[in-house]
Amino acid sequence: MIRSSSSQSRPRAPHVRSSSFAPALRRRNTSISISSPHIGATEDDPEAAQADSAAHVLHEEIAEIKRYEDFTTIDWVQDAAREQLRRRAKRKERAGFWEGGGVTGRRAGWRRKIVEAYDAGQAWIVVTLVGAAIGMNAAFLNIVTEWLSDIKLGHCETAFYLNENFCCWGAESGCPEWKRWSGFWPINYMLYILFAALFALTAATLVKSFAPYAAGSGISEIKCIIAGFVMKGFLGAWTLAIKSIGLPLAIASGLSVGKEGPSVHYAVCTGNVISRFFDKYRRNAAKTREILSASAAAGVGVAFGSPIGGVLFSLEEMSNYFPLKTMWRSYFCALVATAVLAAMNPFRTGQLVMFQVRYDRSWHFFEILFYLILGVFGGLYGALVIKWNLKVQAFRKKYLANYAIAESVTLAVATAIICYPNMFLRIDMTESMEILFQECEGGHDYDELCERQNRWSMIASLAIATVIRTLLVIITYGCKVPAGIFVPSMAIGASFGRMVGIFVQHIHEAYPGSTFFAACEPDGPCITPGTYAFLGAAAALSGIMHITVSVVVIMFELTGALTYILPTMIVVGVTKAVGERFGHGGIADRAIWFNGYPFLDNKEEHTFGVPVSQVMASHIVSLPASGLELRALERIMKDNQYQGYPIVEDATSKTLIGYVGRTELKYAVDRAKKDQMAPGHAKCFFVASSTSSRTPSASGPAMSFDTMSATSAQLNVDLSKFVDPTPLTVHPRLPLETVMEIFKKMGPRVILIEYRGRLTGLVTVKDCLKYQFKVEAHENPQSPGQVNETQEKIWAMMRQTAVWVDDKLNAVRRKLGIGGQDIRLLSPISPSIQPEQSDDALELELEDRGRSDIR
Amino acid sequence: MIRSSSSQSRPRAPHVRSSSFAPALRRRNTSISISSPHIGATEDDPEAAQADSAAHVLHEEIAEIKRYEDFTTIDWVQDAAREQLRRRAKRKERAGFWEGGGVTGRRAGWRRKIVEAYDAGQAWIVVTLVGAAIGMNAAFLNIVTEWLSDIKLGHCETAFYLNENFCCWGAESGCPEWKRWSGFWPINYMLYILFAALFALTAATLVKSFAPYAAGSGISEIKCIIAGFVMKGFLGAWTLAIKSIGLPLAIASGLSVGKEGPSVHYAVCTGNVISRFFDKYRRNAAKTREILSASAAAGVGVAFGSPIGGVLFSLEEMSNYFPLKTMWRSYFCALVATAVLAAMNPFRTGQLVMFQVRYDRSWHFFEILFYLILGVFGGLYGALVIKWNLKVQAFRKKYLANYAIAESVTLAVATAIICYPNMFLRIDMTESMEILFQECEGGHDYDELCERQNRWSMIASLAIATVIRTLLVIITYGCKVPAGIFVPSMAIGASFGRMVGIFVQHIHEAYPGSTFFAACEPDGPCITPGTYAFLGAAAALSGIMHITVSVVVIMFELTGALTYILPTMIVVGVTKAVGERFGHGGIADRAIWFNGYPFLDNKEEHTFGVPVSQVMASHIVSLPASGLELRALERIMKDNQYQGYPIVEDATSKTLIGYVGRTELKYAVDRAKKDQMAPGHAKCFFVASSTSSRTPSASGPAMSFDTMSATSAQLNVDLSKFVDPTPLTVHPRLPLETVMEIFKKMGPRVILIEYRGRLTGLVTVKDCLKYQFKVEAHENPQSPGQVNETQEKIWAMMRQTAVWVDDKLNAVRRKLGIGGQDIRLLSPISPSIQPEQSDDALELELEDRGRSDIR
Repeated sequence: MIRSSSSQSRPRAPHVRSSSFAPALRRRNTSISISSPHIGATEDDPEAAQADSAAHVLHEEIAEIKRYEDFTTIDWVQDAAREQLRRRAKRKERAGFWEGGGVTGRRAGWRRKIVEAYDAGQAWIVVTLVGAAIGMNAAFLNIVTEWLSDIKLGHCETAFYLNENFCCWGAESGCPEWKRWSGFWPINYMLYILFAALFALTAATLVKSFAPYAAGSGISEIKCIIAGFVMKGFLGAWTLAIKSIGLPLAIASGLSVGKEGPSVHYAVCTGNVISRFFDKYRRNAAKTREILSASAAAGVGVAFGSPIGGVLFSLEEMSNYFPLKTMWRSYFCALVATAVLAAMNPFRTGQLVMFQVRYDRSWHFFEILFYLILGVFGGLYGALVIKWNLKVQAFRKKYLANYAIAESVTLAVATAIICYPNMFLRIDMTESMEILFQECEGGHDYDELCERQNRWSMIASLAIATVIRTLLVIITYGCKVPAGIFVPSMAIGASFGRMVGIFVQHIHEAYPGSTFFAACEPDGPCITPGTYAFLGAAAALSGIMHITVSVVVIMFELTGALTYILPTMIVVGVTKAVGERFGHGGIADRAIWFNGYPFLDNKEEHTFGVPVSQVMASHIVSLPASGLELRALERIMKDNQYQGYPIVEDATSKTLIGYVGRTELKYAVDRAKKDQMAPGHAKCFFVASSTSSRTPSASGPAMSFDTMSATSAQLNVDLSKFVDPTPLTVHPRLPLETVMEIFKKMGPRVILIEYRGRLTGLVTVKDCLKYQFKVEAHENPQSPGQVNETQEKIWAMMRQTAVWVDDKLNAVRRKLGIGGQDIRLLSPISPSIQPEQSDDALELELEDRGRSDIR
Repeated sequence: MIRSSSSQSRPRAPHVRSSSFAPALRRRNTSISISSPHIGATEDDPEAAQADSAAHVLHEEIAEIKRYEDFTTIDWVQDAAREQLRRRAKRKERAGFWEGGGVTGRRAGWRRKIVEAYDAGQAWIVVTLVGAAIGMNAAFLNIVTEWLSDIKLGHCETAFYLNENFCCWGAESGCPEWKRWSGFWPINYMLYILFAALFALTAATLVKSFAPYAAGSGISEIKCIIAGFVMKGFLGAWTLAIKSIGLPLAIASGLSVGKEGPSVHYAVCTGNVISRFFDKYRRNAAKTREILSASAAAGVGVAFGSPIGGVLFSLEEMSNYFPLKTMWRSYFCALVATAVLAAMNPFRTGQLVMFQVRYDRSWHFFEILFYLILGVFGGLYGALVIKWNLKVQAFRKKYLANYAIAESVTLAVATAIICYPNMFLRIDMTESMEILFQECEGGHDYDELCERQNRWSMIASLAIATVIRTLLVIITYGCKVPAGIFVPSMAIGASFGRMVGIFVQHIHEAYPGSTFFAACEPDGPCITPGTYAFLGAAAALSGIMHITVSVVVIMFELTGALTYILPTMIVVGVTKAVGERFGHGGIADRAIWFNGYPFLDNKEEHTFGVPVSQVMASHIVSLPASGLELRALERIMKDNQYQGYPIVEDATSKTLIGYVGRTELKYAVDRAKKDQMAPGHAKCFFVASSTSSRTPSASGPAMSFDTMSATSAQLNVDLSKFVDPTPLTVHPRLPLETVMEIFKKMGPRVILIEYRGRLTGLVTVKDCLKYQFKVEAHENPQSPGQVNETQEKIWAMMRQTAVWVDDKLNAVRRKLGIGGQDIRLLSPISPSIQPEQSDDALELELEDRGRSDIR
């Protein structure tokens, strides 16, 4: 019904003409000279309207075939133009309906209205569905995670599927229905470790078998995808399913991983999967990005119970293009998701988060001095973890790619063994944060944390926790299970902060009369160590991600500590300043750089001082506007894998006519060959014969002529409809920085370099990035040789250890007589000593991505 | 010292050559063909470096003369390019310093380092200073406002400069030192009204006499300025001073105005005034906008005590270009400002805001139904006030422009008289909000607001307050005193919300057993009317400004009501949805539209479906690249006031060469005439002779030749240095929407339309807006005739009333024998019956702004 007014003029095939060369040339010239009046006649001209809707139909057709290839970037400018065309056609159609509808039209009025309303509200329907799905998924995850965490320790006798909280609902601190696995603690401990290993094994196996993309946090990749990169399957249904199942397992296994990063990933997957069901988004990759941004906001929103924090996170970290419309969508999506989560109430506390604290005392100005320490810690922590984690990632990529499962299990076992002795590492990270954030007053005391005589042992314990957790995060983050780094970082910051807080408290109590503490009220507690933990968590989170405003809002929504907004801002500010000293960008940005994704970071500013001509590809394959034989065209397309070709008038003048994308061209050529049986020596034309599309009287005959002539051998193939006649062009002497701004802000796939009408070059994001890397490498030369040697040594050591452990385990098994079902965790090590880089899905280095030239 | 390395090659005058025409042409051609290798030789080439710094010096020179004219827009692209050049020159200089410095270089190392650090940290120094100044100003304003408000009621006997709070410090509810003016209430009331009139008179007189720009809220204008519009004096020191003095007077006068909008204005003035002292910002209008955005954030931050809310407000409402760097600057600026304000502690409560509430009860899902009512109210309130306020503004502009002072005084007197009988209108708006937000439990009870038997009278009282305040806001906002609309809107929302809350409470208490209220705990209060007031305030604020995320964060920081974040989001969401039904944009956006400022709103999306060729100016004045006589050039510049001219190769081919701005051209022509005594028949050249700038050996001689030949009559004037050789160009068939996107995102002043190297047109923001207005007018035709008639009637009535009041007052005066010092509030009405549009500062209609063509 929507297409009723335009169906008559719908071209069923790419327009193929059998006219000879000379008229074609003449017609082309006419089309050019009259292009201006043609485009002038718009608003009220029915002919133009018909031509419009014909163009619309063609674009629909292209949209159908236009699937961006894997590992390419989308073209925001073209997608926006296509969306405009779609809307305009819709509007025209509506107007035509009113005029020409008559009785039927009036009768069908309500149906039309519904269709219209549906079209207008599609975005909101999608956002609502996505938000609701994310909220439900989050509730499910929360419940499952809690149950899995508890099952490691014991089980509920009334119903095995209840966790301790629900099993003992209403009872204070445990109940007889909840049974530990055994009365003998070493057995419990062994079971604890075994469960951890089992969970990690399951998670890693699921990831490896079904959705390799579900590993890790996914934030870097999503950043690239939202910026316009295409990674097929990264946001697919399988990834969603495996991430949703694997995440509770990974967290329950006790690994130092958080759920916030993966939350963003599964949320964005949800957005992608749901929006596929809607026409508007299936056909427009750029529009889909709006939904993805909104989903990312909802993901953080449900993970932290912080909807506004989620919106700001999406704004600050995820999206480099964030118009207010998207902000508003994100707001709505996060709202729906959080409301659904609140309605499902997974913790049965009426709260969105596991912890919420209130501080009775406000802060004092002298405490700013100590806040500065926390800020500096945050910055240093971030710099340290980013640097070493990237080294570990490189090592993992090189040596451990084949041992993903073994690695995860080993890490889980090691974490369980190491963490048990420390009181802060033993418990869940979220729980430990809750304890550390609390004030000492009002009955919040965990394991005598607030006792005065334990002060120094607490400080030692917290220091150990900080160091061990940091090391664990460095080696764990990036292993092949769903894993985030937010909560571990916050937990580390909290333990460090609490340590500082206890220390400050000690100083105050030692010198209560000092003028430094003059602001304190006499005879009473003055320092609240819990607030230091809170601020430490904010600092560490900001330090690792290099985000500011979102951290403040998240911390704020997490705890409701309103009076501490200024201290939080100060701490985060210091962290940001310190972090910037050690390199730009948080761990997600650095991972993008590390993986070589084509991502122009809009946080960075460059001063290259070169014109774009320095960077552009000047030896480019362009197609002449007319006269190219079909087989020659096919050969060109086969010989190189460029994502598109500029069209020039002829090879000598190089006057730029337009640009044609590879996908469209391939489709057009295939159709010409199959439907019209165009022979190899048929000539291709890339310039429009505007006469046929302009006068509807001519368009009818052209159609029938088309179909008729399709039976005879075609000599001329008109490909003009697939050409973008107005690609963005710039002057060769335009500064590179301006060109990069155009890429960042407008988002074209390619910018052509035109000098006085002549095509002189072509530049893509990749060209810019290559130049940037070159400059950076020139400025900071590195010697990778030594690093490799050290890595080799570590690898050799790990292999020896693994073989030794394997042997011992087998020996134990043999002694115990358990031979049948060998778990053989470490077995994959034996078959190949020198692993190859098999993990091809993530091998996206800019250098060797041969199959995916961005152009 | 900074310029040491480049001073030798600094051209002291525009380059003037006496060579004949033919070689010049040849040289030009060479310059073109070798332009690519020239720009290729950059990084390590000392010659290029020297050429660079020469170019840098020239640009410095241009920057010195480049003051954007009033009522024009700045060119973001060029300003960014200039900043790049400046940085690069700095870097080069540094490198040169290292290499060539030798002993002196090493000795001066620490000085160099200081200079470098200063240069790098300039932005932070500016932001810190601006933040501190804003914080102090805010503290001053708070103290003065409170004192002025209190002096209306009484005075402190111990020291007249203390307000009631400080006079009675420590005492509960009043003290003997604080005396009312009289024991007899009618005298107090009269004094109250007189003080109100006096304050309004003073504020309006100050504004009228010293800084007309200080009137109103200023948010619309600042939006345009941040987007790149130039309005001289709007952010000047006088405006700052008068706004800072007038604001407390206006608020204390009891007018229905708030301080938040003006806070933004004085904050941005502060940012502008302070940044003028720094080179980096004085010379670069685009960079200054970053500081202005940051200042706006600080302004909202101190006004509401909500630093993060300020940052988000600046992001959501003020800035259409908000890179993360600016966000971070805004964050820092708001932090400093708020911290200074907190340190000065003007309320002596340790809090940043006058009210902070805590709700003990959480909300129930069934309450969402009532929240929806609040949301709808917010949307309707916004639509109503925007619509009618604009009508009042039109009326004011037409008839009341000459009676600004009388108008303000009349409004103040009327407000005082009308508001006195209502208990919620009588008190200060902030105070009334504080009362309405409170829970009933815990001893918060103002005038028996919570008493059950008063319920219906309270509802009536609140309804009256809502209606009267709304009417007052409609007629008051926009009068010629510093006046914001945030707090009045919130107060209105709060009174409506509280009314709904009391009503819901009544229903609940009437039917406590209903299943609808099943979620309530039995035997206890369930509904908290204070939360409805809170949500109503959020709704009204969102409805009037059409902002979402910032409102949620501001409300949140204002009150700390963390548990109510979801309800707040729901209410604001509904408000937004309802508001969008009644037109796009909040009151600030509509005022921009109303005043006709050239502002492309990036919130709006348009579907025009026309190419840019439809909108562009095609009959444009372009200058030939060579051969134009100086006098001809001057005549062209005199005949039309375009802000710049495209340069073409010659008039027939129209091959585009570049673009030259009017300011630069004027400067260059003046210099050529004065310094080189070029005669009128001298030929102007706009193409570069690259030889001289490329080889430093040639540049020396060229210089001396220059100075030598300057004494003889010049025949050729080289203006090439002032030409931008790489203006942004687009294809004539590019969709208008894409061109508007380029304007919004890249921010050029002008986009040239080039077709195959030929200049075919030129488009500015103004052209786009004109087309947009045309389309909108076509779609929504209005009949302004009737409106005018009504306006005329109202004006006649007002005149009659005024004459009558004036007569009566004079009669009273004559009777009482007070003849000497007539106050004659309404006297300005008599001299001219038909006022002219004298308020020329604000007459910026797009149609008749003849002197300021944007181009």
